[in-house]
Amino acid sequence: MFVLDERLQQDTCWLADLPLCRVLLMNDARYPWLILVPRVAAVSEVFELDEAQQHQLWDESRLLAQAMQGVFAADKMNIATLGNVVRQLHMHLVVRVEGDESWPAPVWGRGAAVPYSESGQDAVRKQMLQALERSGLEVALA
Amino acid sequence: MFVLDERLQQDTCWLADLPLCRVLLMNDARYPWLILVPRVAAVSEVFELDEAQQHQLWDESRLLAQAMQGVFAADKMNIATLGNVVRQLHMHLVVRVEGDESWPAPVWGRGAAVPYSESGQDAVRKQMLQALERSGLEVALA
Repeated sequence: MFVLDERLQQDTCWLADLPLCRVLLMNDARYPWLILVPRVAAVSEVFELDEAQQHQLWDESRLLAQAMQGVFAADKMNIATLGNVVRQLHMHLVVRVEGDESWPAPVWGRGAAVPYSESGQDAVRKQMLQALERSGLEVALA
Repeated sequence: MFVLDERLQQDTCWLADLPLCRVLLMNDARYPWLILVPRVAAVSEVFELDEAQQHQLWDESRLLAQAMQGVFAADKMNIATLGNVVRQLHMHLVVRVEGDESWPAPVWGRGAAVPYSESGQDAVRKQMLQALERSGLEVALA
Protein backbone atom coordinates (compact mmCIF):
# COMPACT_ATOMS: atom_id res chain seq x y z
CA MET A 1 0.00 0.00 0.00
CA PHE A 2 1.25 3.46 -0.89
CA VAL A 3 1.80 5.81 2.05
CA LEU A 4 3.57 9.09 1.45
CA ASP A 5 6.66 9.65 3.59
CA GLU A 6 6.03 12.19 6.38
CA ARG A 7 8.95 14.41 5.49
CA LEU A 8 7.82 14.61 1.86
CA GLN A 9 4.30 15.36 3.02
CA GLN A 10 5.57 18.16 5.23
CA ASP A 11 7.83 19.79 2.60
CA THR A 12 5.47 19.68 -0.37
CA CYS A 13 1.91 20.07 -1.51
CA TRP A 14 -0.01 17.72 -3.73
CA LEU A 15 -0.41 18.82 -7.33
CA ALA A 16 -1.67 15.90 -9.42
CA ASP A 17 -1.40 12.18 -10.06
CA LEU A 18 0.18 10.67 -13.15
CA PRO A 19 -0.42 7.02 -14.10
CA LEU A 20 2.43 5.90 -11.81
CA CYS A 21 3.51 8.87 -9.72
CA ARG A 22 2.11 11.37 -7.30
CA VAL A 23 3.30 14.84 -8.34
CA LEU A 24 4.29 17.06 -5.43
CA LEU A 25 5.23 20.74 -5.51
CA MET A 26 8.22 21.47 -3.27
CA ASN A 27 7.32 24.35 -0.96
CA ASP A 28 10.45 26.33 -1.78
CA ALA A 29 9.98 29.53 -3.75
CA ARG A 30 13.70 29.62 -4.69
CA TYR A 31 13.27 27.03 -7.44
CA PRO A 32 10.33 25.62 -9.42
CA TRP A 33 10.73 22.07 -8.14
CA LEU A 34 8.57 18.96 -8.48
CA ILE A 35 8.95 15.61 -6.80
CA LEU A 36 7.53 12.45 -8.39
CA VAL A 37 6.73 9.59 -6.03
CA PRO A 38 5.66 6.24 -7.49
CA ARG A 39 2.40 5.22 -5.80
CA VAL A 40 3.57 1.75 -4.87
CA ALA A 41 4.37 -0.05 -1.64
CA ALA A 42 7.68 0.92 -0.04
CA VAL A 43 10.67 0.87 -2.41
CA SER A 44 13.78 3.00 -2.26
CA GLU A 45 15.70 2.22 -5.45
CA VAL A 46 14.38 2.58 -9.00
CA PHE A 47 15.43 -0.97 -9.79
CA GLU A 48 13.14 -2.30 -7.06
CA LEU A 49 10.22 -1.29 -9.31
CA ASP A 50 9.19 -3.83 -11.93
CA GLU A 51 10.39 -3.22 -15.50
CA ALA A 52 7.18 -1.59 -16.67
CA GLN A 53 7.17 0.74 -13.69
CA GLN A 54 10.82 1.67 -14.24
CA HIS A 55 10.02 2.68 -17.79
CA GLN A 56 6.92 4.55 -16.70
CA LEU A 57 8.85 6.47 -14.02
CA TRP A 58 11.38 7.53 -16.62
CA ASP A 59 8.71 8.55 -19.13
CA GLU A 60 6.89 10.63 -16.54
CA SER A 61 10.16 12.22 -15.43
CA ARG A 62 11.62 13.09 -18.82
CA LEU A 63 8.37 14.28 -20.41
CA LEU A 64 7.47 16.45 -17.45
CA ALA A 65 11.02 17.82 -17.18
CA GLN A 66 10.89 18.78 -20.83
CA ALA A 67 7.58 20.57 -20.35
CA MET A 68 8.88 22.36 -17.25
CA GLN A 69 11.89 23.58 -19.17
CA GLY A 70 9.56 25.15 -21.72
CA VAL A 71 7.16 26.75 -19.25
CA PHE A 72 9.85 28.15 -16.93
CA ALA A 73 12.56 28.87 -19.52
CA ALA A 74 15.04 26.79 -17.52
CA ASP A 75 18.71 27.11 -18.34
CA LYS A 76 19.15 23.56 -17.10
CA MET A 77 16.89 20.87 -15.73
CA ASN A 78 18.25 18.80 -12.83
CA ILE A 79 16.79 15.30 -12.66
CA ALA A 80 17.85 13.14 -9.75
CA THR A 81 16.93 10.32 -7.44
CA LEU A 82 19.08 10.46 -4.30
CA GLY A 83 17.11 9.33 -1.25
CA ASN A 84 19.91 9.47 1.30
CA VAL A 85 17.59 11.18 3.78
CA VAL A 86 14.07 10.22 2.68
CA ARG A 87 14.23 6.58 1.67
CA GLN A 88 10.89 6.41 -0.13
CA LEU A 89 11.72 6.37 -3.84
CA HIS A 90 11.26 9.83 -5.34
CA MET A 91 12.56 11.71 -8.36
CA HIS A 92 13.47 15.40 -8.22
CA LEU A 93 12.75 17.63 -11.22
CA VAL A 94 14.30 21.03 -10.56
CA VAL A 95 14.25 24.08 -12.83
CA ARG A 96 17.65 25.78 -12.66
CA VAL A 97 18.32 29.27 -13.88
CA GLU A 98 21.77 30.84 -14.10
CA GLY A 99 22.19 33.00 -11.04
CA ASP A 100 19.61 31.21 -8.88
CA GLU A 101 20.49 30.96 -5.20
CA SER A 102 22.66 27.84 -5.48
CA TRP A 103 23.85 28.13 -9.08
CA PRO A 104 25.83 26.21 -10.29
CA ALA A 105 25.82 23.92 -7.23
CA PRO A 106 23.01 21.41 -6.70
CA VAL A 107 20.01 22.61 -4.68
CA TRP A 108 20.08 20.03 -1.90
CA GLY A 109 21.30 21.09 1.50
CA ARG A 110 21.96 24.71 0.48
CA GLY A 111 20.39 27.30 2.75
CA ALA A 112 16.82 27.03 4.00
CA ALA A 113 13.70 26.59 1.92
CA VAL A 114 11.68 29.79 1.38
CA PRO A 115 8.00 28.85 1.68
CA TYR A 116 5.67 30.25 -0.98
CA SER A 117 3.31 33.11 -0.24
CA GLU A 118 -0.27 32.22 -1.07
CA SER A 119 -0.23 34.21 -4.31
CA GLY A 120 3.22 32.89 -5.18
CA GLN A 121 2.04 29.35 -4.78
CA ASP A 122 -1.06 30.02 -6.87
CA ALA A 123 1.11 31.38 -9.66
CA VAL A 124 3.60 28.51 -9.71
CA ARG A 125 0.80 25.98 -9.40
CA LYS A 126 -0.77 27.41 -12.54
CA GLN A 127 2.52 27.12 -14.40
CA MET A 128 3.05 23.57 -13.20
CA LEU A 129 -0.43 22.60 -14.37
CA GLN A 130 0.49 24.08 -17.75
CA ALA A 131 3.61 21.93 -17.78
CA LEU A 132 1.59 18.84 -16.88
CA GLU A 133 -0.75 19.57 -19.75
CA ARG A 134 2.12 20.14 -22.18
CA SER A 135 3.81 16.89 -21.14
CA GLY A 136 1.18 14.85 -22.93
CA LEU A 137 0.93 12.58 -19.87
CA GLU A 138 -2.41 11.41 -18.51
CA VAL A 139 -3.04 13.72 -15.55
CA ALA A 140 -5.53 13.25 -12.73
CA LEU A 141 -6.37 16.35 -10.68
CA ALA A 142 -8.81 15.93 -7.87
CA MET B 1 30.33 13.94 -33.77
CA PHE B 2 30.98 12.88 -30.18
CA VAL B 3 33.75 14.74 -28.39
CA LEU B 4 34.16 14.25 -24.67
CA ASP B 5 34.03 17.44 -22.60
CA GLU B 6 37.49 18.50 -21.37
CA ARG B 7 36.51 18.73 -17.73
CA LEU B 8 35.03 15.23 -17.81
CA GLN B 9 38.16 13.96 -19.54
CA GLN B 10 40.32 15.52 -16.85
CA ASP B 11 38.31 14.22 -13.87
CA THR B 12 37.76 10.64 -15.02
CA CYS B 13 39.29 7.70 -16.77
CA TRP B 14 37.74 5.63 -19.50
CA LEU B 15 36.37 2.27 -18.44
CA ALA B 16 34.19 0.84 -21.21
CA ASP B 17 31.62 1.64 -23.86
CA LEU B 18 27.98 0.55 -23.69
CA PRO B 19 25.74 0.60 -26.77
CA LEU B 20 24.92 4.29 -26.19
CA CYS B 21 27.22 5.60 -23.47
CA ARG B 22 30.87 5.95 -22.68
CA VAL B 23 31.45 4.74 -19.12
CA LEU B 24 33.89 6.87 -17.15
CA LEU B 25 35.31 6.20 -13.69
CA MET B 26 35.40 9.35 -11.58
CA ASN B 27 38.90 9.77 -10.19
CA ASP B 28 37.71 10.25 -6.61
CA ALA B 29 38.53 7.48 -4.15
CA ARG B 30 35.89 8.77 -1.69
CA TYR B 31 33.01 7.17 -3.62
CA PRO B 32 32.69 4.45 -6.28
CA TRP B 33 31.31 6.74 -8.97
CA LEU B 34 30.64 6.25 -12.66
CA ILE B 35 29.61 8.79 -15.26
CA LEU B 36 27.72 7.74 -18.38
CA VAL B 37 28.05 10.01 -21.40
CA PRO B 38 25.93 9.32 -24.49
CA ARG B 39 28.26 9.15 -27.49
CA VAL B 40 26.27 11.59 -29.60
CA ALA B 41 26.82 15.10 -30.91
CA ALA B 42 26.46 17.86 -28.33
CA VAL B 43 23.27 17.67 -26.24
CA SER B 44 22.76 18.83 -22.68
CA GLU B 45 19.29 17.63 -21.70
CA VAL B 46 18.04 14.04 -21.79
CA PHE B 47 15.02 15.09 -23.82
CA GLU B 48 17.27 16.36 -26.59
CA LEU B 49 18.09 12.72 -27.33
CA ASP B 50 15.68 10.88 -29.61
CA GLU B 51 13.15 8.57 -27.95
CA ALA B 52 15.14 5.39 -28.49
CA GLN B 53 18.26 7.00 -27.06
CA GLN B 54 16.36 8.29 -24.02
CA HIS B 55 15.17 4.78 -23.27
CA GLN B 56 18.64 3.35 -23.87
CA LEU B 57 20.22 5.91 -21.52
CA TRP B 58 17.77 4.94 -18.80
CA ASP B 59 18.30 1.21 -19.34
CA GLU B 60 22.07 1.60 -19.17
CA SER B 61 21.76 3.78 -16.06
CA ARG B 62 19.33 1.67 -14.06
CA LEU B 63 20.85 -1.72 -14.92
CA LEU B 64 24.36 -0.56 -14.17
CA ALA B 65 23.27 1.18 -10.96
CA GLN B 66 21.63 -2.04 -9.82
CA ALA B 67 24.78 -4.03 -10.53
CA MET B 68 26.94 -1.45 -8.72
CA GLN B 69 24.71 -1.68 -5.68
CA GLY B 70 25.32 -5.41 -5.56
CA VAL B 71 29.07 -5.29 -6.10
CA PHE B 72 29.74 -2.43 -3.67
CA ALA B 73 27.01 -3.21 -1.10
CA ALA B 74 25.69 0.35 -1.44
CA ASP B 75 23.27 1.63 1.16
CA LYS B 76 21.85 3.93 -1.50
CA MET B 77 22.50 4.58 -5.16
CA ASN B 78 22.38 8.21 -6.30
CA ILE B 79 21.39 8.61 -9.95
CA ALA B 80 21.39 12.12 -11.33
CA THR B 81 21.79 14.28 -14.38
CA LEU B 82 22.59 17.86 -13.35
CA GLY B 83 24.95 19.50 -15.82
CA ASN B 84 25.00 22.98 -14.32
CA VAL B 85 28.78 23.12 -14.73
CA VAL B 86 29.57 20.62 -17.50
CA ARG B 87 26.87 21.05 -20.11
CA GLN B 88 27.56 17.87 -22.07
CA LEU B 89 24.79 15.44 -21.12
CA HIS B 90 26.02 12.96 -18.52
CA MET B 91 24.47 10.75 -15.87
CA HIS B 92 26.04 10.24 -12.46
CA LEU B 93 25.84 6.81 -10.79
CA VAL B 94 27.23 7.14 -7.27
CA VAL B 95 27.54 4.42 -4.64
CA ARG B 96 26.63 5.88 -1.25
CA VAL B 97 27.43 4.23 2.03
CA GLU B 98 26.19 5.47 5.40
CA GLY B 99 29.01 7.41 6.98
CA ASP B 100 30.83 8.22 3.72
CA GLU B 101 32.45 11.65 3.57
CA SER B 102 29.34 13.58 2.52
CA TRP B 103 26.62 11.35 3.93
CA PRO B 104 23.70 12.07 3.82
CA ALA B 105 24.32 15.14 1.65
CA PRO B 106 24.86 14.79 -2.10
CA VAL B 107 28.46 14.35 -3.28
CA TRP B 108 28.72 17.35 -5.59
CA GLY B 109 30.71 20.34 -4.44
CA ARG B 110 31.68 18.80 -1.08
CA GLY B 111 35.39 18.91 -0.33
CA ALA B 112 38.03 18.02 -2.89
CA ALA B 113 38.29 14.83 -4.89
CA VAL B 114 40.85 12.33 -3.57
CA PRO B 115 42.63 10.83 -6.60
CA TYR B 116 43.06 7.06 -6.60
CA SER B 117 46.41 5.47 -5.92
CA GLU B 118 47.47 3.11 -8.69
CA SER B 119 46.54 0.01 -6.71
CA GLY B 120 43.31 1.64 -5.50
CA GLN B 121 42.30 2.39 -9.04
CA ASP B 122 43.14 -1.15 -10.17
CA ALA B 123 40.94 -2.56 -7.42
CA VAL B 124 37.91 -0.35 -8.13
CA ARG B 125 38.32 -0.85 -11.86
CA LYS B 126 38.06 -4.60 -11.33
CA GLN B 127 34.90 -4.17 -9.29
CA MET B 128 33.39 -1.85 -11.87
CA LEU B 129 34.11 -4.37 -14.62
CA GLN B 130 32.33 -6.96 -12.49
CA ALA B 131 29.35 -4.61 -12.23
CA LEU B 132 29.37 -4.07 -15.99
CA GLU B 133 29.34 -7.83 -16.51
CA ARG B 134 26.53 -8.31 -13.98
CA SER B 135 24.43 -5.58 -15.61
CA GLY B 136 23.71 -7.80 -18.59
CA LEU B 137 24.47 -4.85 -20.89
CA GLU B 138 26.56 -5.26 -24.03
CA VAL B 139 30.01 -4.00 -22.99
CA ALA B 140 32.91 -3.02 -25.24
CA LEU B 141 36.33 -2.85 -23.60
CA ALA B 142 39.23 -1.85 -25.78
